[in-house]
Amino acid sequence: MTVRVGLIGAGVMGGDHARILSTAVNGAWLAAVSDADASRARAIADAYGATTFPDADELIADDSVEAVIVASPDPTHKALVLACLEAEKPVLCEKPLGVTTGECLEIVGKETELGKRLVQVGFMRRFDPGYTAMKATLDSGDLGRGLILHCVHRNQTSASYSTSEGVIANSAVHEIDIARWMFGEEVVRITVIVPRQSAHAGMQDPQIILMHMAGGAVVDIEAYLNCQYGYDVRGELVCESGTAELTPPHGITLRRSGQEGFGHPEDWRPRFTDAYRIELQAWINSVTGGPLAGASAWDGYAATAVAEAGIASLKTGTSADVRLEAKPGLYDA
Amino acid sequence: MTVRVGLIGAGVMGGDHARILSTAVNGAWLAAVSDADASRARAIADAYGATTFPDADELIADDSVEAVIVASPDPTHKALVLACLEAEKPVLCEKPLGVTTGECLEIVGKETELGKRLVQVGFMRRFDPGYTAMKATLDSGDLGRGLILHCVHRNQTSASYSTSEGVIANSAVHEIDIARWMFGEEVVRITVIVPRQSAHAGMQDPQIILMHMAGGAVVDIEAYLNCQYGYDVRGELVCESGTAELTPPHGITLRRSGQEGFGHPEDWRPRFTDAYRIELQAWINSVTGGPLAGASAWDGYAATAVAEAGIASLKTGTSADVRLEAKPGLYDA
Amino acid sequence: MTVRVGLIGAGVMGGDHARILSTAVNGAWLAAVSDADASRARAIADAYGATTFPDADELIADDSVEAVIVASPDPTHKALVLACLEAEKPVLCEKPLGVTTGECLEIVGKETELGKRLVQVGFMRRFDPGYTAMKATLDSGDLGRGLILHCVHRNQTSASYSTSEGVIANSAVHEIDIARWMFGEEVVRITVIVPRQSAHAGMQDPQIILMHMAGGAVVDIEAYLNCQYGYDVRGELVCESGTAELTPPHGITLRRSGQEGFGHPEDWRPRFTDAYRIELQAWINSVTGGPLAGASAWDGYAATAVAEAGIASLKTGTSADVRLEAKPGLYDA
Amino acid sequence: MTVRVGLIGAGVMGGDHARILSTAVNGAWLAAVSDADASRARAIADAYGATTFPDADELIADDSVEAVIVASPDPTHKALVLACLEAEKPVLCEKPLGVTTGECLEIVGKETELGKRLVQVGFMRRFDPGYTAMKATLDSGDLGRGLILHCVHRNQTSASYSTSEGVIANSAVHEIDIARWMFGEEVVRITVIVPRQSAHAGMQDPQIILMHMAGGAVVDIEAYLNCQYGYDVRGELVCESGTAELTPPHGITLRRSGQEGFGHPEDWRPRFTDAYRIELQAWINSVTGGPLAGASAWDGYAATAVAEAGIASLKTGTSADVRLEAKPGLYDA
Repeated sequence: MTVRVGLIGAGVMGGDHARILSTAVNGAWLAAVSDADASRARAIADAYGATTFPDADELIADDSVEAVIVASPDPTHKALVLACLEAEKPVLCEKPLGVTTGECLEIVGKETELGKRLVQVGFMRRFDPGYTAMKATLDSGDLGRGLILHCVHRNQTSASYSTSEGVIANSAVHEIDIARWMFGEEVVRITVIVPRQSAHAGMQDPQIILMHMAGGAVVDIEAYLNCQYGYDVRGELVCESGTAELTPPHGITLRRSGQEGFGHPEDWRPRFTDAYRIELQAWINSVTGGPLAGASAWDGYAATAVAEAGIASLKTGTSADVRLEAKPGLYDA
Repeated sequence: MTVRVGLIGAGVMGGDHARILSTAVNGAWLAAVSDADASRARAIADAYGATTFPDADELIADDSVEAVIVASPDPTHKALVLACLEAEKPVLCEKPLGVTTGECLEIVGKETELGKRLVQVGFMRRFDPGYTAMKATLDSGDLGRGLILHCVHRNQTSASYSTSEGVIANSAVHEIDIARWMFGEEVVRITVIVPRQSAHAGMQDPQIILMHMAGGAVVDIEAYLNCQYGYDVRGELVCESGTAELTPPHGITLRRSGQEGFGHPEDWRPRFTDAYRIELQAWINSVTGGPLAGASAWDGYAATAVAEAGIASLKTGTSADVRLEAKPGLYDA
Repeated sequence: MTVRVGLIGAGVMGGDHARILSTAVNGAWLAAVSDADASRARAIADAYGATTFPDADELIADDSVEAVIVASPDPTHKALVLACLEAEKPVLCEKPLGVTTGECLEIVGKETELGKRLVQVGFMRRFDPGYTAMKATLDSGDLGRGLILHCVHRNQTSASYSTSEGVIANSAVHEIDIARWMFGEEVVRITVIVPRQSAHAGMQDPQIILMHMAGGAVVDIEAYLNCQYGYDVRGELVCESGTAELTPPHGITLRRSGQEGFGHPEDWRPRFTDAYRIELQAWINSVTGGPLAGASAWDGYAATAVAEAGIASLKTGTSADVRLEAKPGLYDA
Repeated sequence: MTVRVGLIGAGVMGGDHARILSTAVNGAWLAAVSDADASRARAIADAYGATTFPDADELIADDSVEAVIVASPDPTHKALVLACLEAEKPVLCEKPLGVTTGECLEIVGKETELGKRLVQVGFMRRFDPGYTAMKATLDSGDLGRGLILHCVHRNQTSASYSTSEGVIANSAVHEIDIARWMFGEEVVRITVIVPRQSAHAGMQDPQIILMHMAGGAVVDIEAYLNCQYGYDVRGELVCESGTAELTPPHGITLRRSGQEGFGHPEDWRPRFTDAYRIELQAWINSVTGGPLAGASAWDGYAATAVAEAGIASLKTGTSADVRLEAKPGLYDA
């Protein structure tokens, strides 16, 4: 009953997945690791009793591997996911599914051809207890229809290689996925508003991103990668009869040095510890016959398409319509 | 040393002002009341030992009145304020100063001619302890420059006579004033975004209103007059090194019936009890030689001008530039 | 209609009362100031347009003074209050009413003899919006009967002259008064529990003080004068069907340097700004014919009696019964 | 590497353990179930692919079982744990370890004789993220030494068979364990204080329980089994330079019907979902060679001894000293 998982990519995210899979997920076993840097692969393999593969394709093809996690650099995702589809093995691919909509569509096409869903995209927030409680509240109908979703996405500082486009494509893309998932609708228009830049950012940061959903709801996102104080994700869903707001998780409140409050972590991983664990468990469950969970290849494509439109809006200073391909029936709920 | 105040308008706001002035403000005495409905004026006058005037202009002119509060219906404001200027008596005029920019400019012109400031507009939020703490934080420079101001303005239910335009002109106008005051800058552009309407609203409600300030900061406002759950005003100022957020005041937290939390009032008055009291005290202080405080006639004009541009944006579906007249030197800080 | 107030004691509390009375209370005028240190009296008198009296008794007797605030050192309270009673002038006496139960009983006796209540003791917490909301909740019956009142009373650091006994008599005495007021009952037994001392305290600090009320409710108090992080007063009333907890007032929440939260002040005055203002207003109202408000001479006596029993408990390490004299009918509600 | 677990007791707790072990813990497999009610055992066994044993002792002895969870009625614990020790199999026993200190000491004696620790007692709160963060704060020394631990333990309603003694032995025993674990010290004295009873409780409820720790810290516990509003556990550790307080976990804040807040569950299981999962994972880890974790048999004994002293205090109305046997070296850290 234990799923033998192969991991491609032994960086920060890969290492986290390996650890969570090996210490906190039921029914999984890390069987194999591959990384362009063999020593990184070796370190993880040794820690959890896996074998290493010098070549990712070999790992995918090997009989000892039943399911694959792709956590390698973004530009490698498409080919690796296609190889998994070729081998008909379930794959959990870190976001983004592909670096262009074209890449994503190749995967969607291939999976549609196969006629069965094997790809899950690592939009882990769908498994965060706060977001799932928010969606459960919306779906219950207790508060009426959703009208607005306010989002705040703040990082302490951005990486040196960050760009104004990346604020949308790498960061706000999480909110793009959450918006689609929350409302069960596509984004039809996106507008990027630019306040003056922070002196701490060498790019357009922060940004305010507005999205119109197909059903008329509006989503606004403050994406701010250099807020200095910590990693902080907030959200409030405004409905016809009330609102539901994410509460930042924190086990304790401290009172010291004149202040009462709680801490924000330096990066996103502590904030989404539960989400990553539950995501991996749900994926393993789906591999062993449980229901499909998480974002599909279509979701990965749609998120990239919205982000591309957002970048166009950023560049032109006007709204951009989002035009998606026709959705294959495979992805109907 | 006690200021003899005349009140014009004995409705809800007028009654509140009379009560606060007579029970919680130092150095003031309610000397006179006037209202189109003589019995309403009589009731307030009796309660606080004032005399009544059948005619508002007579009240303004009477020697027993040193300073005037205008809390009568909006369309009467302009003429009454002009009469106060004519009589050279300080006047606290409930917002709006005038129902059009034209009316406001008449007052600005008249006051400029006089060469001294006598008009305070009743944007009471400038005296709210939360907003003043937020502004003090910004002005201290501790958090760097302000980049974004997020605002939420929710009413439980809108009045039967409310309109989509009124969401901007009557409600969000408070945030328009706060934004100008917070940043010490004019609004240069305004864009109104329309989510789908709440089923509880017979108009475009909620609305998202975006404003660009002259210095590049962006202000977004959720104005929602039928949120059902209560009156709720929120705000977060996002700066280069941190943020400051209004905390809704509530003396106690209740735990009962499965819930832990606090209540929101049905209307704005409990939320801004302190603001009204402090506003009146500051006004009385200014009348007796203290520093000018609160919004000036220019502020009243500018808020109306921004609201008018907002209504244009609502109607056209595009952004609208805000073009103000040249600001008379009288209103320089 | 303006009450001419004489202030005895021009220290920190006296200065605060003078300022609040002169800038934020309706219907009052600071007419006279007296202090053993003539220059301190002079400074306050000049600031607010009052005259000075070298001798407190003269101030009390003078016709220009209609009501008196006693904010001088504790040992002077009794004689000054008695002088006010002699002159039949209303007096607001800072706590404690007297430094012993004997002193308090002299005042109670004198006032009873007069047959009318002229003394209010400055237990200002009774006017704090949080405490009044808590009591209103209890009195409404919505949560059933009160069973337990948890109290926390923390100061940043204690004064150099503080003593283990003073933790009870000077600090926890506020909670003693609040407990009596909240439940409308006397304290019948008190027990002081001593945890190990903080290294920051040169005395028994913190202490846990337990009180049984006549009706069976229990009150526990953490009194901690050297908590280091700031002045913090908390309280939770536990009832049969729910609880009500004080929310520390704070206008804004800050996010910076990895933390989200709000500040605690260095001393009690910012925390109880509203309480002091409302207390003074209520006292002025009572002087001009409004209802009596605040703690009576009897309450001042009872609080001192409970504190004395608490000190006995601290010394013996066992519980101490509280035995009060018979309550004169004058003090029945 | 997968541990084959046998479960004894298929009631609420047993069912929860089976589910968590089978769906959220790494490296474990539910191999066997036994219950006096064969159909209950059958239901769980079927759900997770386990076999059933009509007799608990047979389950313990069977080679297919490597480690045992005891979740059967309290009076059966001692004999079952002894049988596990006899079979030299690791056992996770739900609290209490035994229903008397005598029973607990039998187990301690047997384990000491064996010379190795095989028993973990199910005080799951030691694994709650809030409590572990609190302890980490204390152990870091950042706030100085701990002086007081305030605890609140509230249940919505008590079971029909609850007793005044059970408030201590079944409910507050969790805080007894947490206090010992937090400070790393034994309890030396316990005092139970009785407020008037809630009309909703047919027994002495609530109770206030005071404990002196060996090092001088004081712990107070409000144990209240009929608070009506929900299950709520709170705690604040008061140190020399600040405090750390548990934050009740809640993914979202709701605003509706005039209220803003979050919900409390009806019983303890949602509150301690994480604690149970982490407890089981830590236990499984310890079975496969990881470090021992959780409460030992000695801890189980000490908690029972303190509870017995607490019951004595409840009955006599005075403090009771806690006298423990000499602690075998096996249980030194």
